[in-house]
Amino acid sequence: MEIDHNFYMNLALQEAWKYQVLTYPNPAVGCCVVGKHGEILAVEAHHKAGEPHAEVNALQKAYYQLTNNSEILELFTSHDIHTFLIKNHNNLFNECSVYTTLEPCSHVGKTPSCANLLSSLGVKKVYVGANDFNEEAAQGNEILQNNNIEVETQVLEKECSDLLLPFKNYIKGRFVFFKWAQRLNGTFDQGSISSAESKKQVHLMRDKCDLLIIGGNTVRIDRPTLDARLVNGKAPDVLIISREKEFDKNIPLFGIENRKVFIADNFDVMKHYKNIMIEGGDILYELTKDFVDLYLCYLAPKIGGERAFKNIDDELEILNADKAGEDIIMWMKKAQK
Amino acid sequence: MEIDHNFYMNLALQEAWKYQVLTYPNPAVGCCVVGKHGEILAVEAHHKAGEPHAEVNALQKAYYQLTNNSEILELFTSHDIHTFLIKNHNNLFNECSVYTTLEPCSHVGKTPSCANLLSSLGVKKVYVGANDFNEEAAQGNEILQNNNIEVETQVLEKECSDLLLPFKNYIKGRFVFFKWAQRLNGTFDQGSISSAESKKQVHLMRDKCDLLIIGGNTVRIDRPTLDARLVNGKAPDVLIISREKEFDKNIPLFGIENRKVFIADNFDVMKHYKNIMIEGGDILYELTKDFVDLYLCYLAPKIGGERAFKNIDDELEILNADKAGEDIIMWMKKAQK
Ligand SMILES: [Zn+2]
Ligand SMILES: [Zn+2]
Repeated sequence: MEIDHNFYMNLALQEAWKYQVLTYPNPAVGCCVVGKHGEILAVEAHHKAGEPHAEVNALQKAYYQLTNNSEILELFTSHDIHTFLIKNHNNLFNECSVYTTLEPCSHVGKTPSCANLLSSLGVKKVYVGANDFNEEAAQGNEILQNNNIEVETQVLEKECSDLLLPFKNYIKGRFVFFKWAQRLNGTFDQGSISSAESKKQVHLMRDKCDLLIIGGNTVRIDRPTLDARLVNGKAPDVLIISREKEFDKNIPLFGIENRKVFIADNFDVMKHYKNIMIEGGDILYELTKDFVDLYLCYLAPKIGGERAFKNIDDELEILNADKAGEDIIMWMKKAQK
Repeated sequence: MEIDHNFYMNLALQEAWKYQVLTYPNPAVGCCVVGKHGEILAVEAHHKAGEPHAEVNALQKAYYQLTNNSEILELFTSHDIHTFLIKNHNNLFNECSVYTTLEPCSHVGKTPSCANLLSSLGVKKVYVGANDFNEEAAQGNEILQNNNIEVETQVLEKECSDLLLPFKNYIKGRFVFFKWAQRLNGTFDQGSISSAESKKQVHLMRDKCDLLIIGGNTVRIDRPTLDARLVNGKAPDVLIISREKEFDKNIPLFGIENRKVFIADNFDVMKHYKNIMIEGGDILYELTKDFVDLYLCYLAPKIGGERAFKNIDDELEILNADKAGEDIIMWMKKAQK
């Protein structure tokens, strides 16, 4: 195993993917801080809009590793951590390297700019995966360089750009991902498939998306609620794709307050939404394949069931695979052929 | 992400799984060397019987990291690396920690004992995953402790024991694993499924196993060669499970020199073999489920084909998942219910 720049950037990537989609409307970002002897001080990610950026989370942890001063661990807002670090860093970071999957932000908004923070701390070098393309936030690399901080860009650039795909599409107007859970042998029928951990992750995603699309047959058979109760989250609006407009209104999904439910045989209503999750099987897969940006598969190591994806011919590329409890979670996009 | 003892041991585990089965008749072992500041100096594994043990590979790399003296990288035998390190270590390793998935060996055989090497180098501490149960090799921990080296055992013990499962079964008499390749939707019919990288791995495994079991239908339909030509390896003996004993002898697998081919409707011939790979579909899965030790699935991120595992009801546990080219490779065992 090579312990090189790619290794550290890859740790940042792995951590960032755990929060993919959950950082909405912010991008998923990961950051790894490496000390002067090459020791890993922290690998952290941005978790949630309004909470600290990946760099701030990582620098907080790294400060604790370097000083053993747990005071900093009691700070939770980006503003407080930023202020504490500027005041107490004592040039501790002067020989540290920072690996960040996305160019550090330059825009001072809800949180102070990470490019300014890194400059104030005087870190030795910043390794950047993907450059920012958001005009408001860009120029982070420039700020760093103007403060005499070495910047190396394009470290695992392809992988870091893939991580940003949901955010890029969201910025352009709309991000759509197709999620399904299946057993090893491809089946998705007959009862519970995913681990508790996987189910919780899906509820976190429902809380973040604004529209959930589902097939009429699934609604009739599974009688789902489609909310985010496992994480006390909000239930997204629902679009049921069905030619037949009649549904038993006692099906729990219809009884959720402050939720709109659309029943249609087309996807027109999508134009009012920006972060859309499809939970479906092979029929919806086929119907949506022209506009789905990413695929998310929860794979349970079980064999059983009857019904699997049929009559589809497709090639995907795995962008990230990770464990979710007993399951494997895979983020994929269409393969370039 | 926690950067703790489990993190370093997990790196050693990840590296070791890449060579699972290929180290036959030795166990798969991984080793991570961490420097005095917590910097990762090396993560290496045992690759192949007759080649250096994981600890020796890792210490070689770590020595180079610490000294930048590339002389050591030109040594390939365990004996030469051992001799070089004993002579030149200069107490460089005195503050290094070593994470090894298996208790360092104490037996001086084809290669010098790793427990003696670690003692001579005077490393600070050795973290051990699973203790050795092979009487010839055990007592490594004791040797270390007698040489005043701190030893901490049972680090990720469950995971490190799972890694040893093939070796343990082999020692007890026989290791059997069931390998298959499939698409995301579970299908395994209709032409090429796996990536070039996955196929090469399978050929490396065929080279190491002594018996390959396959179903008669597969032989008739696929007309396979079942050799290890992609890695210039040896072709294992073949057992074709079939009630019908007649086969077209022009099917390439029959034309390989120095190979025995058995055709039978039972598995009796297995008793003459110790490292057995089954390459099959659902029929063989069902027939062999009582004696298969591990399952190995190559999952290609494709959707297509028709035929998937049917009429099986099983729960597995994923021991390791990794990328193999574009595919995911998963080692699994039966879930404890
Ligand atoms: Zn920022
Ligand atoms: Zn050894």
